[in-house]
Amino acid sequence: MTYELYYWPSVQGRGEFIRLVLEDAGAPYIDVARLPQRQGGGARAIVQVLEGRKNARPPFAPPVLKAGRLLIAQTPNILMFLGCRLKLAPRDAAGRLWTQQLQLTISDFYLEIFDTHHPLGDGYAYEEQKSAAKRRTKDFLATRVPKFFGYFERVLERNRARGPWMVGARASYADFSMAHVIAGLKYAFPKASAKALRSRPRLRALHDAVYERPGIARYLASDRRLPFNNEDLFRRYPELDR
Amino acid sequence: MTYELYYWPSVQGRGEFIRLVLEDAGAPYIDVARLPQRQGGGARAIVQVLEGRKNARPPFAPPVLKAGRLLIAQTPNILMFLGCRLKLAPRDAAGRLWTQQLQLTISDFYLEIFDTHHPLGDGYAYEEQKSAAKRRTKDFLATRVPKFFGYFERVLERNRARGPWMVGARASYADFSMAHVIAGLKYAFPKASAKALRSRPRLRALHDAVYERPGIARYLASDRRLPFNNEDLFRRYPELDR
Repeated sequence: MTYELYYWPSVQGRGEFIRLVLEDAGAPYIDVARLPQRQGGGARAIVQVLEGRKNARPPFAPPVLKAGRLLIAQTPNILMFLGCRLKLAPRDAAGRLWTQQLQLTISDFYLEIFDTHHPLGDGYAYEEQKSAAKRRTKDFLATRVPKFFGYFERVLERNRARGPWMVGARASYADFSMAHVIAGLKYAFPKASAKALRSRPRLRALHDAVYERPGIARYLASDRRLPFNNEDLFRRYPELDR
Repeated sequence: MTYELYYWPSVQGRGEFIRLVLEDAGAPYIDVARLPQRQGGGARAIVQVLEGRKNARPPFAPPVLKAGRLLIAQTPNILMFLGCRLKLAPRDAAGRLWTQQLQLTISDFYLEIFDTHHPLGDGYAYEEQKSAAKRRTKDFLATRVPKFFGYFERVLERNRARGPWMVGARASYADFSMAHVIAGLKYAFPKASAKALRSRPRLRALHDAVYERPGIARYLASDRRLPFNNEDLFRRYPELDR
Protein backbone atom coordinates (compact mmCIF):
# COMPACT_ATOMS: atom_id res chain seq x y z
CA MET A 1 0.00 0.00 0.00
CA THR A 2 1.16 3.53 -0.78
CA TYR A 3 0.60 6.00 2.05
CA GLU A 4 -0.37 9.58 1.29
CA LEU A 5 0.96 12.33 3.52
CA TYR A 6 -0.73 15.73 3.48
CA TYR A 7 1.46 18.46 4.89
CA TRP A 8 2.56 21.99 3.95
CA PRO A 9 5.03 21.65 1.06
CA SER A 10 7.60 24.25 2.11
CA VAL A 11 8.36 23.39 5.74
CA GLN A 12 9.48 20.38 7.74
CA GLY A 13 7.05 21.28 10.52
CA ARG A 14 5.19 18.51 12.26
CA GLY A 15 5.12 16.58 8.99
CA GLU A 16 8.83 15.84 9.43
CA PHE A 17 8.19 13.48 12.35
CA ILE A 18 6.01 11.40 10.00
CA ARG A 19 8.41 11.59 7.07
CA LEU A 20 11.29 10.25 9.19
CA VAL A 21 9.33 7.12 10.12
CA LEU A 22 8.17 6.46 6.55
CA GLU A 23 11.69 7.00 5.21
CA ASP A 24 13.43 4.85 7.80
CA ALA A 25 11.05 1.97 7.07
CA GLY A 26 11.35 2.47 3.33
CA ALA A 27 7.54 2.59 3.18
CA PRO A 28 6.11 3.77 -0.15
CA TYR A 29 4.43 7.15 0.25
CA ILE A 30 3.49 10.26 -1.65
CA ASP A 31 4.14 13.66 -0.08
CA VAL A 32 1.02 14.90 -1.83
CA ALA A 33 1.27 18.67 -1.42
CA ARG A 34 4.80 18.63 -2.87
CA LEU A 35 3.46 17.41 -6.21
CA PRO A 36 2.73 20.11 -8.79
CA GLN A 37 -0.79 21.47 -8.58
CA ARG A 38 -1.74 19.97 -11.96
CA GLN A 39 -0.94 16.54 -10.49
CA GLY A 40 -3.23 17.15 -7.55
CA GLY A 41 -0.53 18.67 -5.34
CA GLY A 42 0.10 22.06 -3.75
CA ALA A 43 -1.57 23.58 -0.72
CA ARG A 44 -4.91 23.02 -2.49
CA ALA A 45 -4.59 19.28 -1.84
CA ILE A 46 -4.41 19.98 1.90
CA VAL A 47 -7.41 22.29 1.83
CA GLN A 48 -9.40 19.59 0.04
CA VAL A 49 -8.55 16.95 2.62
CA LEU A 50 -9.44 19.32 5.47
CA GLU A 51 -12.67 20.61 3.95
CA GLY A 52 -13.99 17.53 2.11
CA ARG A 53 -17.73 17.65 2.77
CA LYS A 54 -18.19 13.93 2.51
CA ASN A 55 -15.70 13.11 5.22
CA ALA A 56 -17.57 11.95 8.32
CA ARG A 57 -14.38 12.28 10.41
CA PRO A 58 -12.73 15.52 9.33
CA PRO A 59 -9.19 16.37 10.45
CA PHE A 60 -8.57 19.69 12.23
CA ALA A 61 -5.16 20.44 10.71
CA PRO A 62 -2.28 18.80 8.85
CA PRO A 63 -0.36 16.52 9.02
CA VAL A 64 -2.93 14.04 7.77
CA LEU A 65 -2.10 10.50 6.67
CA LYS A 66 -4.19 8.54 4.23
CA ALA A 67 -3.73 4.80 4.65
CA GLY A 68 -6.15 2.96 2.39
CA ARG A 69 -9.59 4.17 3.47
CA LEU A 70 -8.33 5.53 6.79
CA LEU A 71 -7.67 9.24 7.23
CA ILE A 72 -5.64 9.89 10.38
CA ALA A 73 -4.57 13.23 11.87
CA GLN A 74 -2.59 14.46 14.90
CA THR A 75 1.13 13.74 14.76
CA PRO A 76 1.38 11.42 17.81
CA ASN A 77 -1.66 9.49 16.59
CA ILE A 78 -0.24 9.01 13.08
CA LEU A 79 3.07 7.91 14.58
CA MET A 80 1.38 5.41 16.88
CA PHE A 81 -0.45 3.95 13.88
CA LEU A 82 2.65 3.82 11.67
CA GLY A 83 4.85 2.56 14.49
CA CYS A 84 2.70 -0.57 14.77
CA ARG A 85 2.43 -1.05 11.02
CA LEU A 86 6.10 -0.49 10.25
CA LYS A 87 7.54 -2.31 13.26
CA LEU A 88 8.90 0.84 14.82
CA ALA A 89 7.10 0.29 18.12
CA PRO A 90 7.14 -2.55 20.67
CA ARG A 91 4.63 -5.35 20.20
CA ASP A 92 3.33 -5.49 23.77
CA ALA A 93 0.59 -3.17 25.00
CA ALA A 94 2.65 -1.74 27.90
CA GLY A 95 5.56 -0.99 25.55
CA ARG A 96 3.23 0.76 23.13
CA LEU A 97 1.74 2.95 25.85
CA TRP A 98 5.24 3.85 27.05
CA THR A 99 6.43 4.74 23.54
CA GLN A 100 3.37 6.95 23.03
CA GLN A 101 3.93 8.53 26.45
CA LEU A 102 7.45 9.50 25.35
CA GLN A 103 6.11 10.82 22.04
CA LEU A 104 3.56 13.01 23.81
CA THR A 105 6.29 14.41 26.05
CA ILE A 106 8.41 15.16 22.96
CA SER A 107 5.35 16.92 21.49
CA ASP A 108 5.10 19.08 24.60
CA PHE A 109 8.77 19.91 24.17
CA TYR A 110 8.55 21.00 20.54
CA LEU A 111 5.39 23.00 21.20
CA GLU A 112 7.40 24.95 23.77
CA ILE A 113 10.12 25.42 21.16
CA PHE A 114 7.57 26.95 18.77
CA ASP A 115 6.43 29.18 21.63
CA THR A 116 9.93 30.65 22.01
CA HIS A 117 9.51 32.63 18.78
CA HIS A 118 5.69 32.85 18.84
CA PRO A 119 4.64 33.21 22.49
CA LEU A 120 1.59 35.23 21.45
CA GLY A 121 0.56 32.64 18.84
CA ASP A 122 0.83 32.76 15.08
CA GLY A 123 -1.78 35.48 14.79
CA TYR A 124 1.16 37.88 15.13
CA ALA A 125 4.41 37.95 13.13
CA TYR A 126 7.67 37.35 14.98
CA GLU A 127 8.54 41.02 14.58
CA GLU A 128 5.34 41.95 16.41
CA GLN A 129 6.21 39.82 19.45
CA LYS A 130 9.98 40.09 19.68
CA SER A 131 10.20 41.30 23.25
CA ALA A 132 7.75 38.64 24.46
CA ALA A 133 9.81 36.06 22.54
CA LYS A 134 12.97 37.18 24.33
CA ARG A 135 11.42 36.77 27.76
CA ARG A 136 9.86 33.43 26.97
CA THR A 137 13.10 32.10 25.44
CA LYS A 138 15.13 33.21 28.43
CA ASP A 139 13.07 31.01 30.74
CA PHE A 140 12.90 28.21 28.16
CA LEU A 141 16.69 27.94 27.85
CA ALA A 142 17.32 28.39 31.56
CA THR A 143 14.75 25.99 32.99
CA ARG A 144 12.81 24.03 30.36
CA VAL A 145 15.66 22.69 28.19
CA PRO A 146 17.52 21.29 31.22
CA LYS A 147 14.28 19.77 32.50
CA PHE A 148 13.39 18.04 29.21
CA PHE A 149 16.96 17.01 28.38
CA GLY A 150 17.52 15.79 31.93
CA TYR A 151 14.37 13.73 31.69
CA PHE A 152 15.15 12.07 28.36
CA GLU A 153 18.77 11.41 29.36
CA ARG A 154 17.37 9.62 32.42
CA VAL A 155 15.00 7.59 30.24
CA LEU A 156 17.97 6.43 28.15
CA GLU A 157 20.00 5.66 31.24
CA ARG A 158 17.23 3.53 32.76
CA ASN A 159 16.70 1.49 29.61
CA ARG A 160 18.88 -1.51 30.42
CA ALA A 161 18.66 -3.02 26.92
CA ARG A 162 21.67 -2.70 24.60
CA GLY A 163 21.88 0.11 22.11
CA PRO A 164 21.15 3.83 21.98
CA TRP A 165 17.31 3.69 21.99
CA MET A 166 14.72 4.83 24.51
CA VAL A 167 12.51 1.71 24.44
CA GLY A 168 14.14 -1.70 24.64
CA ALA A 169 16.78 -2.78 22.13
CA ARG A 170 15.09 -1.54 18.95
CA ALA A 171 14.50 1.88 17.45
CA SER A 172 10.98 3.28 17.81
CA TYR A 173 9.21 6.27 16.29
CA ALA A 174 9.85 8.20 19.52
CA ASP A 175 13.62 7.93 18.92
CA PHE A 176 13.29 9.58 15.50
CA SER A 177 11.21 12.39 16.95
CA MET A 178 13.73 12.90 19.76
CA ALA A 179 16.63 13.04 17.28
CA HIS A 180 14.75 15.53 15.11
CA VAL A 181 14.02 17.79 18.08
CA ILE A 182 17.72 17.72 19.03
CA ALA A 183 18.65 18.57 15.42
CA GLY A 184 16.08 21.37 15.45
CA LEU A 185 17.43 22.80 18.70
CA LYS A 186 20.95 22.72 17.27
CA TYR A 187 19.69 24.69 14.28
CA ALA A 188 17.67 27.19 16.32
CA PHE A 189 19.98 27.66 19.30
CA PRO A 190 23.49 26.55 18.28
CA LYS A 191 25.16 28.03 21.38
CA ALA A 192 22.61 27.10 24.02
CA SER A 193 22.08 23.58 22.66
CA ALA A 194 25.81 22.82 22.48
CA LYS A 195 26.05 23.79 26.12
CA ALA A 196 22.98 21.77 27.12
CA LEU A 197 24.11 18.65 25.26
CA ARG A 198 27.60 18.65 26.76
CA SER A 199 26.43 16.71 29.80
CA ARG A 200 23.98 14.47 27.87
CA PRO A 201 26.09 11.78 26.17
CA ARG A 202 23.15 9.43 25.70
CA LEU A 203 21.05 12.02 23.89
CA ARG A 204 24.00 12.84 21.61
CA ALA A 205 24.45 9.12 20.88
CA LEU A 206 20.74 8.69 20.11
CA HIS A 207 20.83 11.65 17.73
CA ASP A 208 23.85 10.28 15.88
CA ALA A 209 22.46 6.74 15.75
CA VAL A 210 19.23 7.96 14.13
CA TYR A 211 21.01 9.99 11.45
CA GLU A 212 23.35 7.10 10.65
CA ARG A 213 20.51 4.73 9.85
CA PRO A 214 20.60 3.92 6.12
CA GLY A 215 17.03 5.00 5.36
CA ILE A 216 17.45 8.29 7.21
CA ALA A 217 20.86 9.02 5.69
CA ARG A 218 19.46 8.40 2.19
CA TYR A 219 16.53 10.67 2.94
CA LEU A 220 18.71 13.51 4.21
CA ALA A 221 20.81 13.35 1.04
CA SER A 222 17.70 13.40 -1.19
CA ASP A 223 15.66 16.32 -2.48
CA ARG A 224 12.68 14.96 -0.55
CA ARG A 225 14.24 16.50 2.58
CA LEU A 226 13.42 20.17 3.06
CA PRO A 227 16.07 22.30 4.74
CA PHE A 228 15.56 23.97 8.11
CA ASN A 229 14.22 27.48 7.52
CA ASN A 230 12.85 30.46 9.40
CA GLU A 231 9.20 29.97 8.43
CA ASP A 232 9.23 26.69 10.30
CA LEU A 233 8.88 25.14 13.74
CA PHE A 234 12.58 25.57 14.53
CA ARG A 235 13.87 29.07 13.74
CA ARG A 236 17.26 30.63 14.14
CA TYR A 237 17.05 34.13 15.59
CA PRO A 238 20.55 34.85 16.97
CA GLU A 239 19.12 37.44 19.38
CA LEU A 240 17.29 34.62 21.18
CA ASP A 241 20.27 32.26 21.48
CA ARG A 242 22.03 33.37 24.63
CA MET B 1 -8.79 -3.29 40.65
CA THR B 2 -8.45 0.08 42.33
CA TYR B 3 -6.76 2.71 40.17
CA GLU B 4 -4.43 5.28 41.71
CA LEU B 5 -4.40 8.78 40.29
CA TYR B 6 -1.46 11.07 41.05
CA TYR B 7 -2.25 14.71 40.46
CA TRP B 8 -1.86 18.02 42.28
CA PRO B 9 -4.38 18.04 45.13
CA SER B 10 -5.60 21.64 44.87
CA VAL B 11 -6.46 22.06 41.20
CA GLN B 12 -8.61 20.38 38.58
CA GLY B 13 -5.88 20.83 35.98
CA ARG B 14 -5.24 18.06 33.52
CA GLY B 15 -6.14 15.55 36.21
CA GLU B 16 -9.79 16.53 35.83
CA PHE B 17 -10.02 14.89 32.40
CA ILE B 18 -9.03 11.61 34.04
CA ARG B 19 -11.28 12.06 37.07
CA LEU B 20 -14.34 12.58 34.85
CA VAL B 21 -13.80 9.26 33.09
CA LEU B 22 -13.21 7.33 36.32
CA GLU B 23 -16.25 8.94 37.94
CA ASP B 24 -18.58 8.38 35.00
CA ALA B 25 -17.65 4.70 34.89
CA GLY B 26 -17.91 4.35 38.65
CA ALA B 27 -14.40 2.86 38.63
CA PRO B 28 -12.80 2.50 42.06
CA TYR B 29 -9.86 4.89 42.38
CA ILE B 30 -7.82 6.76 44.93
CA ASP B 31 -6.92 10.38 44.26
CA VAL B 32 -3.66 9.77 46.09
CA ALA B 33 -2.33 13.29 46.64
CA ARG B 34 -5.63 14.34 48.21
CA LEU B 35 -5.09 11.92 51.07
CA PRO B 36 -3.46 13.37 54.20
CA GLN B 37 0.33 13.16 54.12
CA ARG B 38 0.38 10.65 57.01
CA GLN B 39 -1.68 8.32 54.79
CA GLY B 40 0.81 8.61 51.95
CA GLY B 41 -0.86 11.58 50.31
CA GLY B 42 0.01 15.21 49.64
CA ALA B 43 2.33 16.58 46.99
CA ARG B 44 5.04 14.31 48.38
CA ALA B 45 3.24 11.30 46.85
CA ILE B 46 3.56 12.90 43.41
CA VAL B 47 7.23 13.68 43.89
CA GLN B 48 7.83 10.06 44.87
CA VAL B 49 6.12 8.71 41.77
CA LEU B 50 8.07 11.11 39.54
CA GLU B 51 11.43 10.54 41.14
CA GLY B 52 11.25 6.87 42.12
CA ARG B 53 14.74 5.59 41.31
CA LYS B 54 13.62 2.06 40.65
CA ASN B 55 11.17 3.02 37.95
CA ALA B 56 12.55 1.98 34.55
CA ARG B 57 9.90 4.08 32.80
CA PRO B 58 9.70 7.35 34.72
CA PRO B 59 6.89 9.83 34.02
CA PHE B 60 7.77 13.43 33.12
CA ALA B 61 4.89 15.11 34.95
CA PRO B 62 1.49 14.41 36.51
CA PRO B 63 -1.19 13.24 35.87
CA VAL B 64 0.08 9.70 36.38
CA LEU B 65 -2.20 6.68 36.63
CA LYS B 66 -1.22 3.51 38.41
CA ALA B 67 -3.16 0.49 37.13
CA GLY B 68 -1.84 -2.66 38.74
CA ARG B 69 1.84 -2.74 37.81
CA LEU B 70 1.43 -0.22 34.99
CA LEU B 71 2.38 3.42 35.49
CA ILE B 72 0.95 5.58 32.70
CA ALA B 73 1.45 9.31 32.11
CA GLN B 74 0.33 11.93 29.59
CA THR B 75 -3.37 12.80 29.74
CA PRO B 76 -4.40 11.59 26.24
CA ASN B 77 -2.48 8.35 26.78
CA ILE B 78 -4.16 7.68 30.15
CA LEU B 79 -7.55 8.43 28.60
CA MET B 80 -6.92 6.09 25.69
CA PHE B 81 -6.01 3.35 28.16
CA LEU B 82 -9.01 3.97 30.43
CA GLY B 83 -11.36 4.44 27.48
CA CYS B 84 -10.70 0.87 26.38
CA ARG B 85 -10.84 -0.56 29.89
CA LEU B 86 -14.00 1.25 30.96
CA LYS B 87 -15.90 0.98 27.65
CA LEU B 88 -15.76 4.69 26.99
CA ALA B 89 -14.17 4.25 23.56
CA PRO B 90 -15.24 2.37 20.42
CA ARG B 91 -14.13 -1.23 20.05
CA ASP B 92 -12.81 -1.02 16.48
CA ALA B 93 -9.29 0.20 15.71
CA ALA B 94 -10.42 2.99 13.36
CA GLY B 95 -12.89 4.29 15.95
CA ARG B 96 -10.19 4.28 18.60
CA LEU B 97 -7.78 6.25 16.42
CA TRP B 98 -10.53 8.76 15.65
CA THR B 99 -11.43 9.19 19.36
CA GLN B 100 -7.76 9.76 20.21
CA GLN B 101 -7.44 12.21 17.31
CA LEU B 102 -10.31 14.23 18.79
CA GLN B 103 -8.71 14.05 22.24
CA LEU B 104 -5.39 15.36 20.93
CA THR B 105 -7.19 18.25 19.24
CA ILE B 106 -8.98 19.02 22.52
CA SER B 107 -5.54 18.97 24.21
CA ASP B 108 -4.25 21.52 21.70
CA PHE B 109 -7.29 23.64 22.51
CA TYR B 110 -6.81 23.62 26.29
CA LEU B 111 -3.09 24.25 25.96
CA GLU B 112 -3.98 27.41 24.05
CA ILE B 113 -6.40 28.30 26.84
CA PHE B 114 -3.58 28.03 29.38
CA ASP B 115 -1.47 30.22 27.09
CA THR B 116 -4.03 33.03 27.27
CA HIS B 117 -3.00 33.80 30.84
CA HIS B 118 0.57 32.46 30.64
CA PRO B 119 1.88 33.21 27.14
CA LEU B 120 5.43 33.49 28.50
CA GLY B 121 5.15 30.15 30.31
CA ASP B 122 4.76 29.46 33.99
CA GLY B 123 8.24 30.72 34.79
CA TYR B 124 6.57 34.12 35.23
CA ALA B 125 3.54 35.03 37.37
CA TYR B 126 0.42 36.29 35.58
CA GLU B 127 1.12 39.77 36.92
CA GLU B 128 4.52 39.72 35.19
CA GLN B 129 3.00 38.95 31.78
CA LYS B 130 -0.30 40.78 31.82
CA SER B 131 0.18 42.81 28.65
CA ALA B 132 1.38 39.76 26.71
CA ALA B 133 -1.66 37.87 28.05
CA LYS B 134 -3.98 40.58 26.77
CA ARG B 135 -2.55 40.43 23.25
CA ARG B 136 -2.56 36.65 23.12
CA THR B 137 -6.13 36.45 24.47
CA LYS B 138 -7.38 38.98 21.94
CA ASP B 139 -6.28 36.75 19.06
CA PHE B 140 -7.40 33.61 20.88
CA LEU B 141 -10.98 34.85 21.32
CA ALA B 142 -11.18 36.39 17.86
CA THR B 143 -9.74 33.57 15.77
CA ARG B 144 -8.94 30.41 17.73
CA VAL B 145 -12.18 29.88 19.67
CA PRO B 146 -14.30 30.16 16.49
CA LYS B 147 -11.91 27.80 14.70
CA PHE B 148 -11.99 25.13 17.42
CA PHE B 149 -15.71 25.48 18.17
CA GLY B 150 -16.53 25.50 14.45
CA TYR B 151 -14.52 22.32 14.03
CA PHE B 152 -16.07 20.39 16.91
CA GLU B 153 -19.59 21.53 15.96
CA ARG B 154 -18.91 20.12 12.48
CA VAL B 155 -17.69 16.84 14.01
CA LEU B 156 -20.99 16.54 15.92
CA GLU B 157 -22.99 17.44 12.82
CA ARG B 158 -21.27 14.79 10.71
CA ASN B 159 -21.79 12.03 13.24
CA ARG B 160 -24.97 10.48 11.85
CA ALA B 161 -25.58 8.23 14.85
CA ARG B 162 -28.31 9.20 17.32
CA GLY B 163 -27.46 11.15 20.44
CA PRO B 164 -25.28 14.08 21.42
CA TRP B 165 -21.85 12.38 21.16
CA MET B 166 -18.89 12.92 18.87
CA VAL B 167 -18.16 9.26 18.07
CA GLY B 168 -21.05 6.98 17.14
CA ALA B 169 -24.02 6.52 19.46
CA ARG B 170 -22.16 6.12 22.75
CA ALA B 171 -20.27 8.55 24.98
CA SER B 172 -16.48 8.41 24.78
CA TYR B 173 -13.72 9.92 26.88
CA ALA B 174 -13.33 12.68 24.26
CA ASP B 175 -16.90 13.84 24.97
CA PHE B 176 -16.09 14.32 28.66
CA SER B 177 -12.98 16.31 27.83
CA MET B 178 -14.91 18.47 25.37
CA ALA B 179 -17.62 19.18 27.95
CA HIS B 180 -15.00 20.08 30.56
CA VAL B 181 -13.25 22.49 28.18
CA ILE B 182 -16.60 24.16 27.45
CA ALA B 183 -17.28 24.42 31.20
CA GLY B 184 -13.78 25.82 31.69
CA LEU B 185 -14.26 28.43 28.98
CA LYS B 186 -17.57 29.45 30.54
CA TYR B 187 -15.77 29.94 33.84
CA ALA B 188 -12.79 31.81 32.35
CA PHE B 189 -14.54 33.90 29.71
CA PRO B 190 -18.25 34.12 30.62
CA LYS B 191 -18.99 36.84 28.07
CA ALA B 192 -16.93 35.61 25.14
CA SER B 193 -17.94 31.99 25.57
CA ALA B 194 -21.67 32.81 25.77
CA LYS B 195 -21.30 34.65 22.48
CA ALA B 196 -19.28 31.85 20.87
CA LEU B 197 -21.70 29.13 21.99
CA ARG B 198 -24.79 30.91 20.73
CA SER B 199 -24.36 29.45 17.23
CA ARG B 200 -23.16 26.01 18.43
CA PRO B 201 -26.27 24.11 19.54
CA ARG B 202 -24.59 20.72 19.27
CA LEU B 203 -21.71 21.70 21.56
CA ARG B 204 -24.18 23.07 24.10
CA ALA B 205 -26.15 19.81 23.94
CA LEU B 206 -23.00 17.73 24.38
CA HIS B 207 -21.99 19.80 27.41
CA ASP B 208 -25.41 19.38 29.03
CA ALA B 209 -25.60 15.66 28.23
CA VAL B 210 -22.25 15.03 29.92
CA TYR B 211 -23.15 16.90 33.10
CA GLU B 212 -26.53 15.12 33.29
CA ARG B 213 -24.98 11.67 33.36
CA PRO B 214 -25.58 10.11 36.79
CA GLY B 215 -21.91 9.41 37.58
CA ILE B 216 -20.85 12.92 36.60
CA ALA B 217 -23.73 14.59 38.44
CA ARG B 218 -22.91 12.62 41.60
CA TYR B 219 -19.25 13.60 41.26
CA LEU B 220 -20.01 17.30 40.84
CA ALA B 221 -22.15 17.24 43.98
CA SER B 222 -19.43 15.48 45.99
CA ASP B 223 -16.44 16.90 47.83
CA ARG B 224 -14.18 14.94 45.48
CA ARG B 225 -14.80 17.68 42.90
CA LEU B 226 -12.53 20.68 43.29
CA PRO B 227 -13.97 24.06 42.34
CA PHE B 228 -12.64 26.13 39.43
CA ASN B 229 -10.01 28.52 40.76
CA ASN B 230 -7.44 31.03 39.59
CA GLU B 231 -4.38 28.86 40.23
CA ASP B 232 -5.65 26.44 37.63
CA LEU B 233 -5.79 25.77 33.89
CA PHE B 234 -8.95 27.85 33.44
CA ARG B 235 -8.71 31.27 35.10
CA ARG B 236 -11.12 34.14 35.29
CA TYR B 237 -9.42 37.48 34.69
CA PRO B 238 -12.22 39.88 33.75
CA GLU B 239 -9.73 42.16 31.95
CA LEU B 240 -9.12 39.36 29.41
CA ASP B 241 -12.81 38.57 28.73
CA ARG B 242 -13.80 41.06 26.04
